[in-house]
Amino acid sequence: MTSISFKFYCERNCRQTQARAGIFETPHGKVETPRFMPVGTIATVKGLTPAQLEAAQAQMILANTYHLHLQPGEEIIKQAGGLHKFMGWKQPILTDSGGFQVFSLSELRKISEEGVTFRSPRDGRIIDFTPEKAIQVQNALGADVIMAFDECPPYPADYDAVLLATERTERWLERCIQAHDRSESQALFGIVQGGVYEDLRRQAAKRLVEFDLPGYAIGGVSVGEPGTLINQIVAVTAPLLPQEKPRYLMGVGTYSEMVNAIAQGVDLFDCVIPTRLGRHGSALVQGERWNLKNARFREDFTPLDDCCPCYCCKTFSRAYLSHLIRSREMLGYLLISLHNVTELIRFTERIRTAILHDRFLAEFGHWLR
Amino acid sequence: MTSISFKFYCERNCRQTQARAGIFETPHGKVETPRFMPVGTIATVKGLTPAQLEAAQAQMILANTYHLHLQPGEEIIKQAGGLHKFMGWKQPILTDSGGFQVFSLSELRKISEEGVTFRSPRDGRIIDFTPEKAIQVQNALGADVIMAFDECPPYPADYDAVLLATERTERWLERCIQAHDRSESQALFGIVQGGVYEDLRRQAAKRLVEFDLPGYAIGGVSVGEPGTLINQIVAVTAPLLPQEKPRYLMGVGTYSEMVNAIAQGVDLFDCVIPTRLGRHGSALVQGERWNLKNARFREDFTPLDDCCPCYCCKTFSRAYLSHLIRSREMLGYLLISLHNVTELIRFTERIRTAILHDRFLAEFGHWLR
Ligand SMILES: [Zn+2]
Ligand SMILES: [Zn+2]
Repeated sequence: MTSISFKFYCERNCRQTQARAGIFETPHGKVETPRFMPVGTIATVKGLTPAQLEAAQAQMILANTYHLHLQPGEEIIKQAGGLHKFMGWKQPILTDSGGFQVFSLSELRKISEEGVTFRSPRDGRIIDFTPEKAIQVQNALGADVIMAFDECPPYPADYDAVLLATERTERWLERCIQAHDRSESQALFGIVQGGVYEDLRRQAAKRLVEFDLPGYAIGGVSVGEPGTLINQIVAVTAPLLPQEKPRYLMGVGTYSEMVNAIAQGVDLFDCVIPTRLGRHGSALVQGERWNLKNARFREDFTPLDDCCPCYCCKTFSRAYLSHLIRSREMLGYLLISLHNVTELIRFTERIRTAILHDRFLAEFGHWLR
Repeated sequence: MTSISFKFYCERNCRQTQARAGIFETPHGKVETPRFMPVGTIATVKGLTPAQLEAAQAQMILANTYHLHLQPGEEIIKQAGGLHKFMGWKQPILTDSGGFQVFSLSELRKISEEGVTFRSPRDGRIIDFTPEKAIQVQNALGADVIMAFDECPPYPADYDAVLLATERTERWLERCIQAHDRSESQALFGIVQGGVYEDLRRQAAKRLVEFDLPGYAIGGVSVGEPGTLINQIVAVTAPLLPQEKPRYLMGVGTYSEMVNAIAQGVDLFDCVIPTRLGRHGSALVQGERWNLKNARFREDFTPLDDCCPCYCCKTFSRAYLSHLIRSREMLGYLLISLHNVTELIRFTERIRTAILHDRFLAEFGHWLR
């Protein structure tokens, strides 16, 4: 079922772990993996221009089907010529299906085999979301990678609830595949659910693989469970997914969990954390989170991170950033967001380089647990 | 008293009006006049990076002595190597003296011949501001152009109050000149006060000119009076200021008032309006203010202004900007701010080009009144 527009191949496999350096080719260009993808929920990575994202080497970014359906609506984006044109981003885009968001809604009204009914938090109107609808919206948006509509159980959830959600996600995947109109130009990824239950994860992975999709995601993680549990879920699931397809761990963007997942053969990551931290004046530096409001930065005239090539680190001092954050200035939030996004992309790029030079364990082994 | 670091000369004088195209040379480069200067009150032009300002041809920007004294304090900026280094802006900077801000404070405690005492709106401490203090802070900040500390009366104010303020401003100017330590690298401009009273303006202008300062500003305008009154004040004052020195009209950045002032021989302008409008989702296009929230922009896929070379207009559609503003996204505010700043600079650049080609009246005469 993989279209000729998409190709994934490994440049190098780690000899000690499942880590691999790969290339994922899409209609809008290639993605070098492993790679962190910044999140642009509502067709904007908060505060950053496409030019700044390109400078940060963000080869692929995310957007969200649920949010874009509510505002501005997929029809406007389709009229604009698709999401790439609408938001001025020429490289690959992945749209999440909206499942995760819909199932997190407090105004969720009804879940049935057909789909989900909820009240729009924007204008109160009643909205039906089904697997067909999620694909139809994503076809209109036109991202390179689109995601199946899944039922994402909360954490914690008991075994029976997760079993039902996981089996429903499989049935919904069949309907997504049926509804998908544009498989030549949009690759549909399946999502492995199964919560924290290893047998459910294994069963879901095996069944999904039979659909021979162009890529697979591990979903239902990063919903509040501890990092060690994420590592366990990934260790159980990733090896069951096909070697020759890209693997994407949804919603994860912390250093340790990315390294552990890469060691299990995961290729792609996303997380809102770099821009969310930026909007609170917190920077990711040297594996730590620094709040720039802290008094120690007031008279610190060194760059935020002197190893970082980003515009923020090349141009400004910690003292200036601290001044901006203390003054609640927009520029402070966006400069730190720019650094944070750059930092996570660079982290995965450094891992990629290490894999290519057979140095993954030597350089990143201390993160494994 | 003009230092060798500063030079102002006219490239061309309009034959029908007092308009002139000039070059103002400063230690951090030249400023081509007439020119609009964006305002970076607290060492940031809100939301915009120095790289974006440079692309907008912002040759000179403003910052504010009063705000920077409160946060982060001039000592930190001095330690950083001065304001240029601190904020990453390599071209000329002008610092306002803080007089305008101090006299607008509701927490103003006492005005005397010595100076002004007020309570900091930041942390409640009592602060004394004097002409000497305003210059000392500006010497520490290190801007290319610094402003005398003036008493700025409100509008409306009666004749006697304005007379007292205008005379005090002259006495304070003498103290500013005495206190100024760095006239080789910082040009001190005097400020003509006099409210709406023509004889007070004339008297103030004549007395200030005797000090032979490197430049002169017309202050105390744009404090709430109608635009036609601004034009009258400028028409009375500007011709009395020396031909061979730059003239700066403080706080004015509207199309009509800029054209009228340029016709009277004014060279420099500043105003917070482009970034303030941007933060409210309003764009300056074709001489109008457009609120991007307006329904007519939702499905308008044309550029904001197809004549504008800015990144916003070259990359995005009105529909996308409308979507960002409706979603209260930071990127929307900053893209519109970028356009608005570019627009006002370009407006003054077009006037400059017209003057250079003897076409000022032909192209801009319809603005005059
Ligand atoms: Zn950086
Ligand atoms: Zn523009």
